[in-house]
Amino acid sequence: MGETISDVGEFGLIHRLDAILRAQGAASSDVSIGIGDDTAAFRPRPGREVLVTCDSMVEGRHYLPDRISPFDLGRRAMAINISDVGAMGGEPRYALVSLGLRASTPVADVEGLYLGFLAELNPLGASIIGGNLTKTDGAPFIDVTLIGEAESGRILRRATARPGDAILVTGFPGQAAAGLRLLLGDGGGPEPGDEPLVRAYTCPAHRAREGRGIAQAGCATAMIDTSDGFLGDLGHICEESGVGAELVQERLPVSEVLRRAAARLGADPYALVLGESDDYELIITSAPDRVADVRSAVEAVSPLPVTVAGRITETAGEISLVGPDGRRSRLPLRGWDHFAR
Amino acid sequence: MGETISDVGEFGLIHRLDAILRAQGAASSDVSIGIGDDTAAFRPRPGREVLVTCDSMVEGRHYLPDRISPFDLGRRAMAINISDVGAMGGEPRYALVSLGLRASTPVADVEGLYLGFLAELNPLGASIIGGNLTKTDGAPFIDVTLIGEAESGRILRRATARPGDAILVTGFPGQAAAGLRLLLGDGGGPEPGDEPLVRAYTCPAHRAREGRGIAQAGCATAMIDTSDGFLGDLGHICEESGVGAELVQERLPVSEVLRRAAARLGADPYALVLGESDDYELIITSAPDRVADVRSAVEAVSPLPVTVAGRITETAGEISLVGPDGRRSRLPLRGWDHFAR
Repeated sequence: MGETISDVGEFGLIHRLDAILRAQGAASSDVSIGIGDDTAAFRPRPGREVLVTCDSMVEGRHYLPDRISPFDLGRRAMAINISDVGAMGGEPRYALVSLGLRASTPVADVEGLYLGFLAELNPLGASIIGGNLTKTDGAPFIDVTLIGEAESGRILRRATARPGDAILVTGFPGQAAAGLRLLLGDGGGPEPGDEPLVRAYTCPAHRAREGRGIAQAGCATAMIDTSDGFLGDLGHICEESGVGAELVQERLPVSEVLRRAAARLGADPYALVLGESDDYELIITSAPDRVADVRSAVEAVSPLPVTVAGRITETAGEISLVGPDGRRSRLPLRGWDHFAR
Repeated sequence: MGETISDVGEFGLIHRLDAILRAQGAASSDVSIGIGDDTAAFRPRPGREVLVTCDSMVEGRHYLPDRISPFDLGRRAMAINISDVGAMGGEPRYALVSLGLRASTPVADVEGLYLGFLAELNPLGASIIGGNLTKTDGAPFIDVTLIGEAESGRILRRATARPGDAILVTGFPGQAAAGLRLLLGDGGGPEPGDEPLVRAYTCPAHRAREGRGIAQAGCATAMIDTSDGFLGDLGHICEESGVGAELVQERLPVSEVLRRAAARLGADPYALVLGESDDYELIITSAPDRVADVRSAVEAVSPLPVTVAGRITETAGEISLVGPDGRRSRLPLRGWDHFAR
């Protein structure tokens, strides 16, 4: 067995993590005070607004330690927050990491977690500038605060979708939900071809570059990431914008691997696409004549498909689905509620 | 029994908390996006640096729910973070609150917690602009991220104390440690006259106004808050500044109520003043001829005593205590290590 946190102590662990950040983390000349004082400090860039978000993951609730490596867990915890900054059209810059850890946790696991954070932050030139370590005898947790910047006037909100707008979505939502079910043993567990689905759950990709490109191009009216699932987050746009939505079933993006997994799981592939799923794709609304610009903005930074899945309507708070027979059915307007019974 | 979180659901709880913030929270015209989008956003003031810190409290580890009300718990969680911003000389502005909660928690308890946050933030004109709610079946936790602002060039660090500087401390460190021991039943438990000590632990006061006044006056060389105890945090100053310190026992501030409690607890009052204690006083270093300016800066905002307790020396990493007989003894240079065995 390797060293545990109680072997090296809190300050010993801080020194070890600090060494990783110094050796392998990105540096920013805008950071005036990093780790090691009462607070961190940075100089905001002129003309920018500061974006800030936080999200936490609790062991046993948001992850199972025997199904995910510390490195992937770190990537996932950071990607989730990067996704939120990207969904506003912002640029992730600084992270603070608050960890609740058991004293018996191997130091190597915490180091792996930090390497996972850096694997997501480094390509964006973003850095960890602070945090907190605390001991817990209960469920360990990871709480990340991510700070970004965006040009005033280029921030994309949820509340500004307009009737008649096209509804676009990146990638293939629902893959993470299928991956989680396979990981938990449904349908006989994952098979070799399921790897993309399982990875979609354990190590989701954020769309921050795509989101920033779309915001910079000024071609969208609203944007959100699908952290509560496609339907849940489209519902947030509708609620905040005072509009409704109509989705067309045959246009929903269903990947080939998801279609196969759905058959094996005995699940409706469209229910997987629309339901709760930790995918972190983007839902974008735009005027119909700006759809091509949204696609161009994404193409400039990634090969990710962008699908027009429906349109925004005037009927506030109502989302309907048009089936293959042209029949319209109303969908429940609700997202993933962590406390629902 | 009142409503629980599982009765109202995650989004129901968010709406309830949002209503409290709208009705009772401070508003800032610099906040462009508050709660309810993927991130919050604010416009930093020109010429200021942004300070950011986070600190978490875990039930059973940092607080016992049957010994502290949700309101006091909220005050305490926020005061701890305000203290960190104040110890840099900054002005607290925006908070994000990440909570891990059991589904069985009464909604009224979470509302009480939020009212506690506001009781600390409102007098400073600071506001809650975001956060996260997550369900946990383990120990509930509160993780606060606090963002402040400070004028470039007026930020007070740990790393800049100089040999010959006076060491000053606000208030009476050690009172919280005594209060905690009384609360846990040591010395027969708290008595009526112990109220200030118990309050010092359950509801510590921050010194953000004092810290900001000192920073604005430009009279200090270094500053830190005593979250790891007087000796622990003086040790941080020494370590980061590459200096040592000499404290004079008879000059250490011992309050009358602490002296009485120490006798009842069978404890050395000086050990209480120097040891681990959650007081959140300030340790300030300044050139000897600027001590009067430090006092004036504090007097301008509060009646808090400021005591000169010793001086910074050249012997890096060594802290000594001069006893009543003039004899010098070396003190252990270590702070409160949460993971130490």
